[in-house]
Amino acid sequence: MKYVYFFGAGKAEGHGDQKDLLGGKGAGLHEMTRIGLPVPAGFTISTEACDQFFRQGKKYPRGLDREVSRHLARLEKATRKKLGEPKDPLLVSVRSGSARSMPGMMETILNLGLNDRSVEGLSERTHNDRFAWDAYRRFVQMYSSVVIGLPKEELEERLRDMKKRRGTALDTDVTADGWRELVAAYKKFFRERTGKDFPQDPVLQLWGAIGAVFGSWMAEKAVTYRRVEKITGLLGTAVNVVQMVFGNKGDSSGTGVCFTRDPSSGEKTFFGDFLINAQGEDVVAGIRTPMHLSDMRKRMPKLYAQLERVRGILERHYSDMQDIEFTVEEGKLYILQTRTGKRTPAATFRIAVDMVKEHLISKEEAIERIKGEDIERLFYPVLDPDLPRTDLAKNRLATGVNAVPGAAVGQAVFNAHEAENLAAAGNKVILVRRETSPEDVGGMAVAQGILTATGGKTSHAAVVARGWGKCCVVGCEALDVDYSQKLFRANGRVVHQGDWITLDGNEGAVYQGQLKLTTPQLPPDYETLLSWCDKIRKIGVRANADTPQDARKSREMGAEGIGLVRTEHMFFKDFDYPEKSIERQRAIQEMIIAEDPQRRKKALDRLLPFQRQDFIGIFRAMEGLPVVIRLIDPPLHEFVPHDRVKQEELARDLGVSADSIARRVAQLHEANPMLGHRGCRLCITYPEILEMQVRAIIEAAIACQREGLRVHPEIMHPLTLDKKEMRILEQATRRVADEIIRKEKMKIHYLVGTMIELPRAALLAGEIAEIAEFFSFGTNDLTQTTMGLSRDDAGRFLPDYVDEKKAGIFKHDPFQVLDIEGVGKLVEWGIQQGRKVRPKLEVGICGEHGGEPESVKFCHRVGMDYVSASPFMVPIARLAAAQAVIEEGKKPRKSKR
Amino acid sequence: MKYVYFFGAGKAEGHGDQKDLLGGKGAGLHEMTRIGLPVPAGFTISTEACDQFFRQGKKYPRGLDREVSRHLARLEKATRKKLGEPKDPLLVSVRSGSARSMPGMMETILNLGLNDRSVEGLSERTHNDRFAWDAYRRFVQMYSSVVIGLPKEELEERLRDMKKRRGTALDTDVTADGWRELVAAYKKFFRERTGKDFPQDPVLQLWGAIGAVFGSWMAEKAVTYRRVEKITGLLGTAVNVVQMVFGNKGDSSGTGVCFTRDPSSGEKTFFGDFLINAQGEDVVAGIRTPMHLSDMRKRMPKLYAQLERVRGILERHYSDMQDIEFTVEEGKLYILQTRTGKRTPAATFRIAVDMVKEHLISKEEAIERIKGEDIERLFYPVLDPDLPRTDLAKNRLATGVNAVPGAAVGQAVFNAHEAENLAAAGNKVILVRRETSPEDVGGMAVAQGILTATGGKTSHAAVVARGWGKCCVVGCEALDVDYSQKLFRANGRVVHQGDWITLDGNEGAVYQGQLKLTTPQLPPDYETLLSWCDKIRKIGVRANADTPQDARKSREMGAEGIGLVRTEHMFFKDFDYPEKSIERQRAIQEMIIAEDPQRRKKALDRLLPFQRQDFIGIFRAMEGLPVVIRLIDPPLHEFVPHDRVKQEELARDLGVSADSIARRVAQLHEANPMLGHRGCRLCITYPEILEMQVRAIIEAAIACQREGLRVHPEIMHPLTLDKKEMRILEQATRRVADEIIRKEKMKIHYLVGTMIELPRAALLAGEIAEIAEFFSFGTNDLTQTTMGLSRDDAGRFLPDYVDEKKAGIFKHDPFQVLDIEGVGKLVEWGIQQGRKVRPKLEVGICGEHGGEPESVKFCHRVGMDYVSASPFMVPIARLAAAQAVIEEGKKPRKSKR
Repeated sequence: MKYVYFFGAGKAEGHGDQKDLLGGKGAGLHEMTRIGLPVPAGFTISTEACDQFFRQGKKYPRGLDREVSRHLARLEKATRKKLGEPKDPLLVSVRSGSARSMPGMMETILNLGLNDRSVEGLSERTHNDRFAWDAYRRFVQMYSSVVIGLPKEELEERLRDMKKRRGTALDTDVTADGWRELVAAYKKFFRERTGKDFPQDPVLQLWGAIGAVFGSWMAEKAVTYRRVEKITGLLGTAVNVVQMVFGNKGDSSGTGVCFTRDPSSGEKTFFGDFLINAQGEDVVAGIRTPMHLSDMRKRMPKLYAQLERVRGILERHYSDMQDIEFTVEEGKLYILQTRTGKRTPAATFRIAVDMVKEHLISKEEAIERIKGEDIERLFYPVLDPDLPRTDLAKNRLATGVNAVPGAAVGQAVFNAHEAENLAAAGNKVILVRRETSPEDVGGMAVAQGILTATGGKTSHAAVVARGWGKCCVVGCEALDVDYSQKLFRANGRVVHQGDWITLDGNEGAVYQGQLKLTTPQLPPDYETLLSWCDKIRKIGVRANADTPQDARKSREMGAEGIGLVRTEHMFFKDFDYPEKSIERQRAIQEMIIAEDPQRRKKALDRLLPFQRQDFIGIFRAMEGLPVVIRLIDPPLHEFVPHDRVKQEELARDLGVSADSIARRVAQLHEANPMLGHRGCRLCITYPEILEMQVRAIIEAAIACQREGLRVHPEIMHPLTLDKKEMRILEQATRRVADEIIRKEKMKIHYLVGTMIELPRAALLAGEIAEIAEFFSFGTNDLTQTTMGLSRDDAGRFLPDYVDEKKAGIFKHDPFQVLDIEGVGKLVEWGIQQGRKVRPKLEVGICGEHGGEPESVKFCHRVGMDYVSASPFMVPIARLAAAQAVIEEGKKPRKSKR
Repeated sequence: MKYVYFFGAGKAEGHGDQKDLLGGKGAGLHEMTRIGLPVPAGFTISTEACDQFFRQGKKYPRGLDREVSRHLARLEKATRKKLGEPKDPLLVSVRSGSARSMPGMMETILNLGLNDRSVEGLSERTHNDRFAWDAYRRFVQMYSSVVIGLPKEELEERLRDMKKRRGTALDTDVTADGWRELVAAYKKFFRERTGKDFPQDPVLQLWGAIGAVFGSWMAEKAVTYRRVEKITGLLGTAVNVVQMVFGNKGDSSGTGVCFTRDPSSGEKTFFGDFLINAQGEDVVAGIRTPMHLSDMRKRMPKLYAQLERVRGILERHYSDMQDIEFTVEEGKLYILQTRTGKRTPAATFRIAVDMVKEHLISKEEAIERIKGEDIERLFYPVLDPDLPRTDLAKNRLATGVNAVPGAAVGQAVFNAHEAENLAAAGNKVILVRRETSPEDVGGMAVAQGILTATGGKTSHAAVVARGWGKCCVVGCEALDVDYSQKLFRANGRVVHQGDWITLDGNEGAVYQGQLKLTTPQLPPDYETLLSWCDKIRKIGVRANADTPQDARKSREMGAEGIGLVRTEHMFFKDFDYPEKSIERQRAIQEMIIAEDPQRRKKALDRLLPFQRQDFIGIFRAMEGLPVVIRLIDPPLHEFVPHDRVKQEELARDLGVSADSIARRVAQLHEANPMLGHRGCRLCITYPEILEMQVRAIIEAAIACQREGLRVHPEIMHPLTLDKKEMRILEQATRRVADEIIRKEKMKIHYLVGTMIELPRAALLAGEIAEIAEFFSFGTNDLTQTTMGLSRDDAGRFLPDYVDEKKAGIFKHDPFQVLDIEGVGKLVEWGIQQGRKVRPKLEVGICGEHGGEPESVKFCHRVGMDYVSASPFMVPIARLAAAQAVIEEGKKPRKSKR
């Protein structure tokens, strides 16, 4: 087993495709070495080694030590330096790197190889005592916190103490002696806390660092991050041991991060930050505000030109926008890392479409690069453009760097942990920090937006927030954040914890109070890309919509019909005249309280015109497109009040006794309402409800057709489980519908079908398809019954089932991503059996999975006619449907089972 | 299409195997005609005609009228009489008859063909004016009530009035003029009610009667009866039109019912009742008390000898005990009906075993004749034999005919409808009637026992009750029943409605008050027959038992192991020391209330010795046999009190605040507990519970093995749905178990397996079988999830689903009889997939279906290793398992799919 891969001097044992083995950073280093870019030499310990490390209870795999020493020797040979050599020591960085980027989640140690002796050698060799001791203090600091786990704050405190003692304000002003003093203080602290001296043997240091990097893979924050980001299937992190180059050797040195295109807008401009006389961490942490590349171009034209050339090579090589880390050591450029750059959703679309136009990638590749979340985030809110400028000016607190666009309103919170608690209690919060660190990720995840006082667009806060498409303003230097008092001051005003603020991530502005937000304009490239998707995809996309308003929205979003109208929503609310909602509620309640079919019928007659009017609105909005209407589904108790006061009100309105209502409500109580008297079972017991609903649908269709509109109603019965049941429902439906059609002398083409949402229905789909003209898989309920999981209750244990640190039984929450291996089996079987009997059976899905990309791809693979998703998920479904076709084209065709 | 089949003069168009087409009675008449028995001539209108009648909206099928007239002509030719002929008219009976006996459920009309003219002809011809008018009044009475639907009571009232007017007490004392007067009264009443004259055209009469018989097939009482008796798949009733013979032509005439063996004990004696000068209805209705056959033998030896010969022929011909109706007309014997006789469970076993010994049937045939209910009823209670004789004498109210054995205690109720209501409200009732009629069947069904003042062992009450194995005393002539005051008097005592009485169906005795009942001795033939079953059957039979007591009982009942120990039952109750139950409850409650694993662990440590002791008891009882132990299954909220008072008690006992308990209880509340945090999910969240339970099992096994006992524990995880989940549980189980085994240095062979009770588990059974060593199908929950039916809630609509008069969607309640086409598919798939991976996978079922015969047969067919049923169902499962083998042997082998 080979665990270690060398790169250096233009040759590399690995290459760019080996991300799984070498991690993203490692694969990039090997690849860049291969294509001749200036990369410092080094070697990568593979993710397989990390995997073995955890499999064997945190023990290094056999032979790893020998392999590492062999490669260390090779590195020493290539650099002509030796680790720990007192005169001219080899110094290395030890960095993590997994196959998927996890910014800031794992550990890095720099300047490894320094000890009390070699620091002097470095000083002599570089003629820079200050540099050498600065490097040593950085190493001791990192090693102490990362490898040993000493608290960062206490180390920082010693730095502050030293500076205070010596009267220096800035790190750059600290002298060699100052750093020497700090190293002594660190070492003392180290001894106090660990009972041991700071390790002087560089090989020991190296193994400590390797172990720390491996260990960080399973640190809680990294595990959480992977869960949030749905990152699964990785072996572990690789470890890159690379010769150090120094950006902090004076004003001809520096370090920077750049993007080959603007990660915010997607514009094809060279974009980045450069910090003179600094090491990489200084940029990423955002502690000092760096210079933009445009300034670098003016101030260091030659270096800029070199960088610009690298930009071109890398973008062409990878055919994607790159995020590049580089260091300049005494005028010489080194590329330390390249990876696909994170970007805003708008930039995602622009870059993808531009690259197709530039013939860098194909349309298919462009489509593959878009993720569902990219689309989702396009619809994130912005400040209402109609807000008066004077209002804005009056409320403006400060302006920072517009790190991630969008807008957010929330209550200021100064601590990530508190942010999590407040958000869990239902509050909208904005996390305000001087700067963020990986410890803050939990609080960042739940916040509406993130605001930091320091840092640039490549700071931790900016990178993480951008990945999530979460509004973020950084480098807002006017902010004076006081953690202990939980407040910040800005331009003479004070914002306390709990005060409302508004962030504008487009402008980088911070406002006092709650400003009005609206939905943004979609970028033109979005439409272009989605139109490509529509040409490629084979599965239809419909929307779940219950009102004419939703129906119009769905059509706007590209829906080709409605896959689910939940008629009972109309019982609760009049969407045209909300003030009339009570009339509907009373009618349905009267229907439920009714003790005989006659009274029930009377109450239903009151509901009929409301339902008919709603259906007319929906049919109008969806003119020419199919509309699947589901008859009443929820258990009746959901429609009646459960508290005494409301029951008394209802009793007065209906002219019955409150006791009789309480009795009926008690009668309707169920131990497991999910498995109770609901769905088509209601229409089996109360055929009057079916009659009213079918009447409303058919009368509405006739009314629209008289207006000259084309209507395609599909009447859907929920929760069926048997052919005989389906036949009763179908016959009752046709009896009512055909009688009206005959009387009105109109031709209405309607379908009668069913949801397949119980395992038994899927198992007996062949028989049911003898009656049903269409199937719509209700995968919400099908998941609940197939897995025996109540969605309402699963909160108590499902998180453990998904958490890989706990049981880790499911890859995803099955209510988010369809459980393909379990529930999917039933879906596949149901379709096969149904189509055997009725080859033209129309098949769709209307559970919430219909808008989830992995699930949509599954629906494509099993040959559904359409997916139906909530209106805002429609474009995501369109994208996923196209991606499914592309993925399929790549796979070797499976033989038919 | 041929609808009508003729029989007469030794020839018959149909035969005995055509029960489905000709009904049981019809097939018997045709067959008896074929084998030369004296049967009156007639013809049968087939069940297919009835089926067509209902399919065409109660219209006779085309051509039926012509076919009936042709056969009527044939009958007239055979009898040399003509229907309606004024001088010597042909009279016929029109009787229902379906493939399955439905005693008293459908209609019969006798003496059809009489009218105002032919009655005079009959009178002249028979020289018996009284007989002729009696016949006519009977016909008018039956026709009016059965065909026209006039109320029986009002007709009876006119009979009473006439008798009162004429001062006659008994029907037999009524003169010809009396009957003439009654006919006139009936005809007047008929005209008043219908506006028409009583029909005089015999052909019109015949069609009226045919229509009434067809109609009775769908009458509510018949439909209810079929549902209760689970009779499905029949086309309808046949109609038998048969020449009348008269048992009421004087003292050389009579009518009777006999059984070829004693239907109560099964003894091989000729058994029956004969009523001189009476028509059949008089016997069946039990209005007069008949003479026993032994008396007939003495008084009419020649006739008796003829009958005895018929008895031998029929029993040999049908190889089963027959129930024969016969009539003697002026000394000539006619056999009117033969059918397999209903019998008590004890008789069922005795007859079956005796017939095998007599080489009349094979062992297989004997086994096939036993039904599950026959066994169930063997265990019905009897009067405690230890009751002091003086007590019995003191409480004895009266003695009647011991129609159906067993004993019953209940409150006297005098009306069937009230009996239904009281039973529905949870009362135990005994239905007391002068005599019963088919209208009373609903009340009879819910009663503990039935008591009538009149009638013999072949009366309606006796026959129906015997079919159900329900304790019944008839002909209790000392009873003076007063319906209006709701009481009866007997030997100077009065029993009012609501007073407790006790029936002893073995002795025919009626007692005041609630006497103590016990379980009876099993008949020796039961053991013989079950031992034959055990030799034939291939599937094992285990029991569901939660306590050492139950385990011992199971073994007694023939269980070959325990298929399900529900360990949580031990948390509620200490079966050895019930007064200690609270200790267990408190410990489990403390475990649930515990807020951290340490406290939980402490509470579990208190439970450990209890559980271990229970397991020791069970292992001892089941020495040498496998014991499947299911770990904790129900949601935790089932263990904690939900009302404030009990919560406060618990709080005091545990030394915590009542509020904290209320909080925890609220936290445990679930919207759908069936789909909630239960089953193995509890052990995933609280591994401490698994550890305690596995420890208790293994320590108990070791303790027993040290005693020299052989133990075979099988540890079962409920509600699994995934291989990974199963692996976590299996590893945790083995870790605990193997550590104890290692420490104790014992060899314990144990299995780790799972219930398959979720559709997903069945679908992924192949993967789960990689880990699980055995499967036990939990078909209760599998039915709930597959069908989306909560057992607790289904009461609201499931009855409609099973009721063929309503939706009629399911043949059976799926919680009683396994839904083979739906749930069964998952079971079959699960077994196939599991065995593919693990060919020796042990597979069983432990849902309540494990004791239901149809379901047991399914389990055999799909190749399960065993079924597990509640202890009392074990013999039923043994029987069904043998029957499954026999049925399989008969069927052509299906080719492997």
